Amino acid sequence: MERTKIILDCDPGHDDAVAIMMAAKHPSIELLGITVVSGNQTLQKTVTNALHICQHLNLDVTVYAGSPTPLIKDPIYAEFIHGKSGLDGPVFEPLTKKVEPMHAVSFIIRTLMRSEGDITMVTTGPMTNLALAMRLEPRIVKKIKQVVLMGGSAGSGNITPAAEFNIFVDADAAQIVFKSGLPIVMCGLDVTRKVRCYQEIIDRMDKLGNKASTLFKDMMEFYNETQLASFGWVGGPLHDPLTIAYLIDNSVIETSYCNVSVDNKSDVSYGRTNCDLINFMKKEPNVHVAIDVNVDLFWDIIESCLALYGTEN
Amino acid sequence: MERTKIILDCDPGHDDAVAIMMAAKHPSIELLGITVVSGNQTLQKTVTNALHICQHLNLDVTVYAGSPTPLIKDPIYAEFIHGKSGLDGPVFEPLTKKVEPMHAVSFIIRTLMRSEGDITMVTTGPMTNLALAMRLEPRIVKKIKQVVLMGGSAGSGNITPAAEFNIFVDADAAQIVFKSGLPIVMCGLDVTRKVRCYQEIIDRMDKLGNKASTLFKDMMEFYNETQLASFGWVGGPLHDPLTIAYLIDNSVIETSYCNVSVDNKSDVSYGRTNCDLINFMKKEPNVHVAIDVNVDLFWDIIESCLALYGTEN
Amino acid sequence: MERTKIILDCDPGHDDAVAIMMAAKHPSIELLGITVVSGNQTLQKTVTNALHICQHLNLDVTVYAGSPTPLIKDPIYAEFIHGKSGLDGPVFEPLTKKVEPMHAVSFIIRTLMRSEGDITMVTTGPMTNLALAMRLEPRIVKKIKQVVLMGGSAGSGNITPAAEFNIFVDADAAQIVFKSGLPIVMCGLDVTRKVRCYQEIIDRMDKLGNKASTLFKDMMEFYNETQLASFGWVGGPLHDPLTIAYLIDNSVIETSYCNVSVDNKSDVSYGRTNCDLINFMKKEPNVHVAIDVNVDLFWDIIESCLALYGTEN
Amino acid sequence: MERTKIILDCDPGHDDAVAIMMAAKHPSIELLGITVVSGNQTLQKTVTNALHICQHLNLDVTVYAGSPTPLIKDPIYAEFIHGKSGLDGPVFEPLTKKVEPMHAVSFIIRTLMRSEGDITMVTTGPMTNLALAMRLEPRIVKKIKQVVLMGGSAGSGNITPAAEFNIFVDADAAQIVFKSGLPIVMCGLDVTRKVRCYQEIIDRMDKLGNKASTLFKDMMEFYNETQLASFGWVGGPLHDPLTIAYLIDNSVIETSYCNVSVDNKSDVSYGRTNCDLINFMKKEPNVHVAIDVNVDLFWDIIESCLALYGTEN
Repeated sequence: MERTKIILDCDPGHDDAVAIMMAAKHPSIELLGITVVSGNQTLQKTVTNALHICQHLNLDVTVYAGSPTPLIKDPIYAEFIHGKSGLDGPVFEPLTKKVEPMHAVSFIIRTLMRSEGDITMVTTGPMTNLALAMRLEPRIVKKIKQVVLMGGSAGSGNITPAAEFNIFVDADAAQIVFKSGLPIVMCGLDVTRKVRCYQEIIDRMDKLGNKASTLFKDMMEFYNETQLASFGWVGGPLHDPLTIAYLIDNSVIETSYCNVSVDNKSDVSYGRTNCDLINFMKKEPNVHVAIDVNVDLFWDIIESCLALYGTEN
Repeated sequence: MERTKIILDCDPGHDDAVAIMMAAKHPSIELLGITVVSGNQTLQKTVTNALHICQHLNLDVTVYAGSPTPLIKDPIYAEFIHGKSGLDGPVFEPLTKKVEPMHAVSFIIRTLMRSEGDITMVTTGPMTNLALAMRLEPRIVKKIKQVVLMGGSAGSGNITPAAEFNIFVDADAAQIVFKSGLPIVMCGLDVTRKVRCYQEIIDRMDKLGNKASTLFKDMMEFYNETQLASFGWVGGPLHDPLTIAYLIDNSVIETSYCNVSVDNKSDVSYGRTNCDLINFMKKEPNVHVAIDVNVDLFWDIIESCLALYGTEN
Repeated sequence: MERTKIILDCDPGHDDAVAIMMAAKHPSIELLGITVVSGNQTLQKTVTNALHICQHLNLDVTVYAGSPTPLIKDPIYAEFIHGKSGLDGPVFEPLTKKVEPMHAVSFIIRTLMRSEGDITMVTTGPMTNLALAMRLEPRIVKKIKQVVLMGGSAGSGNITPAAEFNIFVDADAAQIVFKSGLPIVMCGLDVTRKVRCYQEIIDRMDKLGNKASTLFKDMMEFYNETQLASFGWVGGPLHDPLTIAYLIDNSVIETSYCNVSVDNKSDVSYGRTNCDLINFMKKEPNVHVAIDVNVDLFWDIIESCLALYGTEN
Repeated sequence: MERTKIILDCDPGHDDAVAIMMAAKHPSIELLGITVVSGNQTLQKTVTNALHICQHLNLDVTVYAGSPTPLIKDPIYAEFIHGKSGLDGPVFEPLTKKVEPMHAVSFIIRTLMRSEGDITMVTTGPMTNLALAMRLEPRIVKKIKQVVLMGGSAGSGNITPAAEFNIFVDADAAQIVFKSGLPIVMCGLDVTRKVRCYQEIIDRMDKLGNKASTLFKDMMEFYNETQLASFGWVGGPLHDPLTIAYLIDNSVIETSYCNVSVDNKSDVSYGRTNCDLINFMKKEPNVHVAIDVNVDLFWDIIESCLALYGTEN
């Protein structure tokens, strides 16, 4: 079985953490490295969180720190969802795992330039690192197999009525990637909101009884509290893992290939991903937009990934 | 029974025509006048269409011509939906009914200023007339009981991925109304798209066997063809009548009172109505946004309205 | 001698007041009416000021109140320049002259529609009234001989680095007028800033020793103080009267016919009049932009106008 | 005498070429390297031109290639001014000098990080390289002594009425630099337009009779033709060298320290540098904006620089 090579660019973040847990262990995926960006929390915190996940679960993956700010705008953070640390809930041992000395953007460029064009870029945070890499070394665009991202929405947003958080934080970076001509699979908010981590899901995963499932439980219980308080969701939507689930089993989402334009100019609509699902504008399609998700299959995939961590703590 | 006094500001248009048919006949509504605006077609054509409906159905309603263009932008028309005349499909006798000499904006101002503050403004087209009236005579704002409009979307648009047609044509006018402080009920595209005029609906109405139901049939058969060709809908969504149906029976829609900001500045998102349904932005609510519709009740209301035209042609 | 028929649309305002004084008395001009708009102060105050000028100088001119707010934006005022009353400095007797009952926009429309196409619209405030009139009765566009306005800048602004006050207050109205296809003469800030009302100018006018020159002195002494405090000018620029001076003697300014686009969308550049004086963009010219002024001739014209008020108080 | 250490980031371009000639030879300046960007022509051409200048004049300076496109927008070029090669006019021998293998952005970051904080960044093209460097390694901001740039305008633009070419090409990059908090000296178009390279200037320089003065002549004769054809200038304005002239003798320009906001959002005003020279907005000053130039001193500096190339070809 050929494994899908990926670089996971993320800002953990509870749902990013689950994406890491999946990508690092699933046999169909080869995780070449984790690149981290400012987003759900400051870069320092998101890097720390990535390292904690890897150390806690004994994952042999390198972690690279990327951009501490968006391309042009000032950073904002989602502390209201992810807490002060950016990954509140679980308690980790003191950190011994170290971040790599190389810049995330350099790692992305070097890895892609040395590749056979078979690497998928997965982004589950603001797309600043990837955009910077594309601008610093435009030849990587031809080296990227595809971009699979969590971000945007064909419907309404979360951080504003118009925009989803990852795109809103850096719509300029998103603009660069969406206009790159690359194959893009976008798992947007309107679809990821359908995978709600109800208490019964947490209980189901908890039955696995291993370190990963316990971590999942500890994270999700915190996450569900803030999702409820911030957005009124009972059972927080588990956004980011849908990207990895898609790579494990493409059938987990249904997509529509259409034109998506990112609004990086507006005031009230800044960060909106305008998805022309009905092709009314007759513009060139550029994104495979997820339009539905097989929720049961999604949780089966999550469970199968967590199960890979064994049955004992 | 106290009747709801309304001025119906519209751009007929097939669905506007149905709204006229309902408003002019239903015992719970007192239609004070029809004011017409450029939108689905040129002002000349939309005025002609309003007159045709009234003449054809023998409706004793005055029709006033308003603004031939949006407030600032150049006009666009929806010929792809409503045809060359703006009301293609039915064949009308030569027009004898005349448009009133008074300007629609003057009629709106005069009628409101003389009122007891009990008049509802219903708009089913671009909101140019109402916005102009508000700017020409700001005191009418306190005289308007409420605005009930078809326009906007809490989800995606139709004329662009961001915007619904009525708002897109004149987002500047919409901005004026949405910021006026008036009670506003917005029947947006995401909800009106749920009332699809399938062939069985047309057949059901046709059984009434009167002039109105025949007109309905003739209009809807054309409308369904262009809706299918333009947007891929089998059974075109009957947008505008939801405003009148709401006035007849409020329970036909469920609404959420929230902040809506109109984007009249952006390029790619121009005309979007950003509805903060989850009150994440903590801004003052200004619009009662329809979030769901009782489809069965809607068609019952339509049927009851058409039935008022008697059982014989 | 054929007199130039004008409607003077203004927001007095010290420099508007001088424009009124000129237009009402000069034999080459026939002042058909003064229409007033919100701008330098609230509509109530600018109307009051217009009436005061007319009453104080015994001018037989009708005054009409127009729009109390810009087309779309909220109003702002220039109290920092014109004081609390909008015309601080002179002391007037109690007001007995009354504003006309007709709305300024109605007066503009009626007067133009009954005209032979020989009326010049002069605007020395935000262009809200004229824009509303154009939208309410589009046929007036063909009836207007030309628009002569004080507003905008080919260089930098005053209320922001990008924008001059009159355009900034209502760039949407300006957009409508600038795109109307009418002949437009724009006296922008970069040129009006060259006519500085130094103390010696005030002294020179004061020697006329009539009621108008005393009023001029009383107004300009206040004006010069606020111009100094707000902008650092010694000798405030006398913006608005350049429009009337131009009508009295076209040679007072040099103009360039070029394309001007109004920015009514931007955040930081809102209200800018982008004047393509070098025709680099190859767009259709639409405005005769003043590029220089004969300062000596200007003051001669002012003096000759004030002199018309006689030599005794 | 302590020499001013600089990195010259440019897009040669005729006036950039003169800046190189000055910076590479003047005893008060230590030119650490030339970094090149897309702008007046494609990156490939601007790099080639930088190498030609160095080779032709036997300058021992390293040349680094940077970004082939702006940060977000698509590139545009000024072929109408600089010709097909980007440096039309002079005829060069075949190129043997090589561009360095290191990326310009990496060179900027490495050089700055190893410095004592004593390096001035001079940009005479779009600011893409510097912006990318700041985003890739934010710590360089504290290492940069100051930025001296040719770009923007306190008045009108050249590539549009609102914008000067360098800023227009990449207003997003300019936004990053202008908001960085660094000391910035901006030599804008309204000032550089005052240093016009009339034929007598060319003749004066030509009398030096060395390789540099001949090159100057060959370049300027072509440049003056296109400036005349494009903008109507007799004697093209020699924009970029004012930056180096300033470093050689600060007194060549008069500056005002004020707030400058870059418009990177607007449509018609995109790329405008809004300079609040009168501090009306009461915002924090961030740029030392050139407001005047000592033209005679400027040409004396140019002449003294060209003279450094000896008296024989």
